[in-house]
Amino acid sequence: MAQIAVIHGPNLNLLGARETHIYGSMTLAKIEAALVDAAGAEHGLRCFQSNHEGAIIDFIHAAREWADGILINPGAFTHYSYALRDAIAAVKLPTVEVHLSNIHTRESFRHTSVIAPVAVGQIAGFGWRSYLLGLQALLDHLHDQKQP
Amino acid sequence: MAQIAVIHGPNLNLLGARETHIYGSMTLAKIEAALVDAAGAEHGLRCFQSNHEGAIIDFIHAAREWADGILINPGAFTHYSYALRDAIAAVKLPTVEVHLSNIHTRESFRHTSVIAPVAVGQIAGFGWRSYLLGLQALLDHLHDQKQP
Amino acid sequence: MAQIAVIHGPNLNLLGARETHIYGSMTLAKIEAALVDAAGAEHGLRCFQSNHEGAIIDFIHAAREWADGILINPGAFTHYSYALRDAIAAVKLPTVEVHLSNIHTRESFRHTSVIAPVAVGQIAGFGWRSYLLGLQALLDHLHDQKQP
Amino acid sequence: MAQIAVIHGPNLNLLGARETHIYGSMTLAKIEAALVDAAGAEHGLRCFQSNHEGAIIDFIHAAREWADGILINPGAFTHYSYALRDAIAAVKLPTVEVHLSNIHTRESFRHTSVIAPVAVGQIAGFGWRSYLLGLQALLDHLHDQKQP
Amino acid sequence: MAQIAVIHGPNLNLLGARETHIYGSMTLAKIEAALVDAAGAEHGLRCFQSNHEGAIIDFIHAAREWADGILINPGAFTHYSYALRDAIAAVKLPTVEVHLSNIHTRESFRHTSVIAPVAVGQIAGFGWRSYLLGLQALLDHLHDQKQP
Amino acid sequence: MAQIAVIHGPNLNLLGARETHIYGSMTLAKIEAALVDAAGAEHGLRCFQSNHEGAIIDFIHAAREWADGILINPGAFTHYSYALRDAIAAVKLPTVEVHLSNIHTRESFRHTSVIAPVAVGQIAGFGWRSYLLGLQALLDHLHDQKQP
Amino acid sequence: MAQIAVIHGPNLNLLGARETHIYGSMTLAKIEAALVDAAGAEHGLRCFQSNHEGAIIDFIHAAREWADGILINPGAFTHYSYALRDAIAAVKLPTVEVHLSNIHTRESFRHTSVIAPVAVGQIAGFGWRSYLLGLQALLDHLHDQKQP
Amino acid sequence: MAQIAVIHGPNLNLLGARETHIYGSMTLAKIEAALVDAAGAEHGLRCFQSNHEGAIIDFIHAAREWADGILINPGAFTHYSYALRDAIAAVKLPTVEVHLSNIHTRESFRHTSVIAPVAVGQIAGFGWRSYLLGLQALLDHLHDQKQP
Amino acid sequence: MAQIAVIHGPNLNLLGARETHIYGSMTLAKIEAALVDAAGAEHGLRCFQSNHEGAIIDFIHAAREWADGILINPGAFTHYSYALRDAIAAVKLPTVEVHLSNIHTRESFRHTSVIAPVAVGQIAGFGWRSYLLGLQALLDHLHDQKQP
Amino acid sequence: MAQIAVIHGPNLNLLGARETHIYGSMTLAKIEAALVDAAGAEHGLRCFQSNHEGAIIDFIHAAREWADGILINPGAFTHYSYALRDAIAAVKLPTVEVHLSNIHTRESFRHTSVIAPVAVGQIAGFGWRSYLLGLQALLDHLHDQKQP
Amino acid sequence: MAQIAVIHGPNLNLLGARETHIYGSMTLAKIEAALVDAAGAEHGLRCFQSNHEGAIIDFIHAAREWADGILINPGAFTHYSYALRDAIAAVKLPTVEVHLSNIHTRESFRHTSVIAPVAVGQIAGFGWRSYLLGLQALLDHLHDQKQP
Amino acid sequence: MAQIAVIHGPNLNLLGARETHIYGSMTLAKIEAALVDAAGAEHGLRCFQSNHEGAIIDFIHAAREWADGILINPGAFTHYSYALRDAIAAVKLPTVEVHLSNIHTRESFRHTSVIAPVAVGQIAGFGWRSYLLGLQALLDHLHDQKQP
Repeated sequence: MAQIAVIHGPNLNLLGARETHIYGSMTLAKIEAALVDAAGAEHGLRCFQSNHEGAIIDFIHAAREWADGILINPGAFTHYSYALRDAIAAVKLPTVEVHLSNIHTRESFRHTSVIAPVAVGQIAGFGWRSYLLGLQALLDHLHDQKQP
Repeated sequence: MAQIAVIHGPNLNLLGARETHIYGSMTLAKIEAALVDAAGAEHGLRCFQSNHEGAIIDFIHAAREWADGILINPGAFTHYSYALRDAIAAVKLPTVEVHLSNIHTRESFRHTSVIAPVAVGQIAGFGWRSYLLGLQALLDHLHDQKQP
Repeated sequence: MAQIAVIHGPNLNLLGARETHIYGSMTLAKIEAALVDAAGAEHGLRCFQSNHEGAIIDFIHAAREWADGILINPGAFTHYSYALRDAIAAVKLPTVEVHLSNIHTRESFRHTSVIAPVAVGQIAGFGWRSYLLGLQALLDHLHDQKQP
Repeated sequence: MAQIAVIHGPNLNLLGARETHIYGSMTLAKIEAALVDAAGAEHGLRCFQSNHEGAIIDFIHAAREWADGILINPGAFTHYSYALRDAIAAVKLPTVEVHLSNIHTRESFRHTSVIAPVAVGQIAGFGWRSYLLGLQALLDHLHDQKQP
Repeated sequence: MAQIAVIHGPNLNLLGARETHIYGSMTLAKIEAALVDAAGAEHGLRCFQSNHEGAIIDFIHAAREWADGILINPGAFTHYSYALRDAIAAVKLPTVEVHLSNIHTRESFRHTSVIAPVAVGQIAGFGWRSYLLGLQALLDHLHDQKQP
Repeated sequence: MAQIAVIHGPNLNLLGARETHIYGSMTLAKIEAALVDAAGAEHGLRCFQSNHEGAIIDFIHAAREWADGILINPGAFTHYSYALRDAIAAVKLPTVEVHLSNIHTRESFRHTSVIAPVAVGQIAGFGWRSYLLGLQALLDHLHDQKQP
Repeated sequence: MAQIAVIHGPNLNLLGARETHIYGSMTLAKIEAALVDAAGAEHGLRCFQSNHEGAIIDFIHAAREWADGILINPGAFTHYSYALRDAIAAVKLPTVEVHLSNIHTRESFRHTSVIAPVAVGQIAGFGWRSYLLGLQALLDHLHDQKQP
Repeated sequence: MAQIAVIHGPNLNLLGARETHIYGSMTLAKIEAALVDAAGAEHGLRCFQSNHEGAIIDFIHAAREWADGILINPGAFTHYSYALRDAIAAVKLPTVEVHLSNIHTRESFRHTSVIAPVAVGQIAGFGWRSYLLGLQALLDHLHDQKQP
Repeated sequence: MAQIAVIHGPNLNLLGARETHIYGSMTLAKIEAALVDAAGAEHGLRCFQSNHEGAIIDFIHAAREWADGILINPGAFTHYSYALRDAIAAVKLPTVEVHLSNIHTRESFRHTSVIAPVAVGQIAGFGWRSYLLGLQALLDHLHDQKQP
Repeated sequence: MAQIAVIHGPNLNLLGARETHIYGSMTLAKIEAALVDAAGAEHGLRCFQSNHEGAIIDFIHAAREWADGILINPGAFTHYSYALRDAIAAVKLPTVEVHLSNIHTRESFRHTSVIAPVAVGQIAGFGWRSYLLGLQALLDHLHDQKQP
Repeated sequence: MAQIAVIHGPNLNLLGARETHIYGSMTLAKIEAALVDAAGAEHGLRCFQSNHEGAIIDFIHAAREWADGILINPGAFTHYSYALRDAIAAVKLPTVEVHLSNIHTRESFRHTSVIAPVAVGQIAGFGWRSYLLGLQALLDHLHDQKQP
Repeated sequence: MAQIAVIHGPNLNLLGARETHIYGSMTLAKIEAALVDAAGAEHGLRCFQSNHEGAIIDFIHAAREWADGILINPGAFTHYSYALRDAIAAVKLPTVEVHLSNIHTRESFRHTSVIAPVAVGQIAGFGWRSYLLGLQALLDHLHDQKQP
């Protein structure tokens, strides 16, 4: 059984209302419901969204106490928040980075992730399903790590 | 009649006290008074200053509910806050970017605005008057959009 | 009372006929009429358009004799005419740079202005209204300079 | 029911024997067996590995006749094979790009994928599980596309 | 009378079926027929298409025995195949490089040709007619070379 | 029947007298005669050479009134005249860019054309024949456009 | 007697628990105790740690009222927070920048400090002792400034 | 006895009136008088100033008929006028490039000369004396060339 | 006694016939004879040339079964074949990279080798003797590795 | 008790006489006296200044025999002397790099230190006090290393 | 009357024997004789050549005691010796930089001078006459400085 | 019979004592003994090591009088000493560049050699054997040059 911190970066609270041709029409609430559903009774999720870099870092720090891994869509912080990167590296929790859109077909500044080098892996381009795939990837990773 | 969100980025609360050879000696309060005066009875303004990127994003999100357009001096966020850029793009409110100083005669990092590509236009270099010109530009833009 | 040199760079003679989705449908004649209207009886304007870099430089040199300031839309010269830049710097007339379109949302070569570092400020993205805003900015600037 | 072309790029035939600290110890045969297992009776898979860029392109071209989507680990071709990229763009089959390792923690030439801009999305860093996640992502994508 | 090697690079076998908004609707067979027609009885053509870089190099090497010049559309190899470039330089056959599309209006990686420095000249942007123009250019070039 | 504006950029008046190892020994007069010959009675040509960027832009603007297309060798303006580029884009006449020499085997600044992105296509490296090929390409293009 | 604002940037609250091979095993509390000890009765210190860029800027602004100088370890903000840089420049308090690790032997993004150009000087690489050295440097600097 | 074409680029007509802290207070007329004086009865000078790139190119072309060498201060054309460079290369007259100011201590765009690679040599930084030194260098060069 | 895989990349089959001013007049057959001669009875060589990247990779993979080391002249693959690089890294056979010409005095793209970082060492510039030196270096390296 | 090699790079012999607005008015002799004073009876210092890169390298090599650590102000060698860097790396003596001025507020070439990656740490910007702080940092570092 | 330090950088002792197609056939002794001749009885020259960067710096430092200006051909030090640059800046003697060859027509590393920003001006491309021109430029500069 | 100048650059005197995991444990004396042994009675060697760039240049200049070729390990001078490069080019002695380590697997500044373009060839990565291979390559090269 694993405890997962699910983190949504800036502007993701607008999901479903915002630029639906890029991000799809699922709201964050529905995505979180789908994640809870997928996690089942076996695993616990705590979801957190903030537009504040510092609040997300605080949440990650606190997750050291209860979480086994992090599922994060860093939003625009992906491209410049070295503080967020350091937070993930510092707590040493296995982290999976997800993106709704295929960041490689958009503006060039979106092609680089400063988070990726401290993540286990990345999943991008599958809309809200990126989250589900990321959760599965993280749970599998945690499962594998426990094996002798 | 239009409702305008007026946003001042980091360190602009020090205006009038800070590096007056660059930014002039008008305080933020006086600039806001001048803006209210220029808007007249016809238009409504709500002004907001913060040194917190997240707080500004929250304010922009909330503006979806009441504002017709945004007048913003992003301060140093101009040069790296992709989260702020995404917020403006997400709420789809017409946005005018203003700068007190001529950013092209200063350090090279100030020559690039990550906000500009999601703004209607930019005005820079006219001190506190950049705000007045920006307000006029925004009101004219909103007026034009209403025309058939 | 101020005398203003209004300068339009290459291809702006086609305004209203050319790429109207980018530049709008106002002709140069109409813009100049609007400027004269805005300047009122108090201020004098002389307008000049040329596709010849040298002719614009000659006009700027001559303006030393009669003008108090320059309002210029350098068109494509914005991006490479260091000779034009030097002309503005040489005559030392306060200069406001305007652009019809938001140059930051177009091809990357349009993101850099070699004129901006010798201008008082820039205004871009408001169509023909950029000129009106620029005139106002220039007149205000000249007015401020006269204050003790 | 969907038909999926599974493609492995150069050197992936050595999987399980090669640099296991980076790529893990699963052989390609075992990965393919896991994929078949995951696809179940409902979906069909045809797997293809080659060290020849041209052979992979030929295979992709042929897939136009029978496949609904492509699951590809382009190996080192990821970083320079514009011919492979053009092949994927030409056949217009939805394509998911997977990588065993987290390419962002390795040599800098591995940080760029010339394939990504023509893929639906990418999944990287989860070892052999990247393939399973990629298959699921592709099947879901195909399923969504069929919806009205 | 001249013998011409006509070479089509990767993915050009799909011509007419692939991205017709970029490449037009002529098939390779039809283009080759038009070339034969244009060459007339006087000149001989041998056409070759491959998605394999090595096969094209082998064909170029063999052409030393029978060809007077090369007409080549290198496709995506244009942008990275230094081996193809070396092959052309090695056999010393006059070579004309053609492209269906205007490579300068597409992705930036298509703006550079590693083949061009070893070609006589390039023709790009005229759809299937680029081939006809290229053939004529090559035949004229060969004709000129024979003059004393 | 088509009317074609043939434009020669700076220094091309010296053709035949200048650096013949690069540009060949045909004079501009002879090239224009060959073009008239090739155009035949069916098509009309007006030729124009100038060393003045502005004069070429003026000529292009005027061509809106009478020409169906432009055949241009922009000479050194190829590499920096964004004003010329804008002129071509503004008049919306189909334009073919030609060069006498293979610009890819010369100094690196000659490898980039700022004109190419607004042209139908480019032809380079075939000496004076580049003009003939360009004329044919342009006439064919105009012919194709007229087809339903 | 001097009043010093001691500021710790993001993730430094984890000091002693986080990546001790890079940052050492001293906690922030112990470092602050050592600083207080070093400052002695003569000087006053107020310490502040935050993961929120805005909170640090607010603290710096407030320090104008009571502090004579700033000792700051900006953490990851070192590399991108132009807002923090502007705050330091605005309050005009002498500032010493310290780093626990030698930032020049780590990832390349850590080699650049956007804070350094507005600081008196930097000290990096001496673990928790960087703070002590920084305090001494700052106190000496303040002492020197008071001299006639 | 040598005939020398002396060419002054854009804005040099303002010499003595313009930015005297950079360019000195000598007018162009005085510099030309000094040059004539230095040339003595033995050599002939024709001086030409223009703000029009095309006019300078025309003058250089005409100089083929009468001049033995060129002394040029290209002004701002130094940094971008490839057309001017081509004109000098085309007429094959030995050319000496002079600058009043030390271009290496000014803005970075002034550090590169596109003219230098086709000149015999450059002289920069000695105010109006750069012209005198340049004339002497050119006359000596012409004298040396005549030696067997 | 060692078994050595000798690999020649693209276009090296033309050796002795191709650009002899750069590559010399020795044919590949003669070079291989010289290598066999140098290896003597003690060591075994298997030579392979191909213009197909994939064929070379296949050959390297197969060499795992019988070879102790690789002597390779990758030809143009040196500069872009990351697949070849990965193949060498994967089989973990000590590899020596040789070049006939001094790649540092040729076109800039030849200055970088993507193979070098996975080789033991490189030898370049000594014509066909580079192979003999490379063989000796490889045999010495293998000899040293066997020492306790 | 520790023995310290104190090294001053090129031009530092002019200290106190040279550009005092940047480097201060302390002479090297006075700085060395202050260092000896700070070291006290417990530690030994040997100071060395040279304008010769080779002489400094020789001194560093010799220091292997008697020194426990190096305090160095490399002067301009900071920015290009890889030989000096290799010397420090070779002798493996703990090294502290100091600079009088804040190198980040000066010319861009001064922003990079090739020495820093082989130093324990750097101290810059505190005038002659940088040396005192550097000595203290080095002595503390040596003391810490001796602890079990 | 002025005392001039004439400095020749590395490899210039070989002048006349070395690469005469680039540097001419005058020996250093002859050039120095010509300089003495040009200086006449009025001015004194001391010439110094060294292949040692440190020796040249020492010579420059010593020149503070006796010289009024420096005439220097820094040879290859031009391109990287920041220590030499600092020496010239430190002694504050007016310095003229000369080069025998036109450095802008040679390898790209020769296009940049790190010395130029601290020199009065540069003269390049006139063979041994560059020295004579440089001496004249320096003497004139010193003469001008003495004027009230 | 050939006379060879063997040159070791900075820090190579420490060989065998310094970073043996990179450079091996052979001392310079032993390497030189092995070189003498390999040269046999037929050829003469003079070995020279210095940490002084100028001393090495002096040695190379002197070698014109007695040497037939140069074998050089430039150490760190490889990466920046254009003076050393010019010295080799000036004396026109065939030069072979050797490196103990594979410079392509180390820091990026070591990937570029400014010496390579003036050398016959390079050998890198074979420890002390690089010298032996280099000597053989040089002797063979000298032998080949003597052939008619």
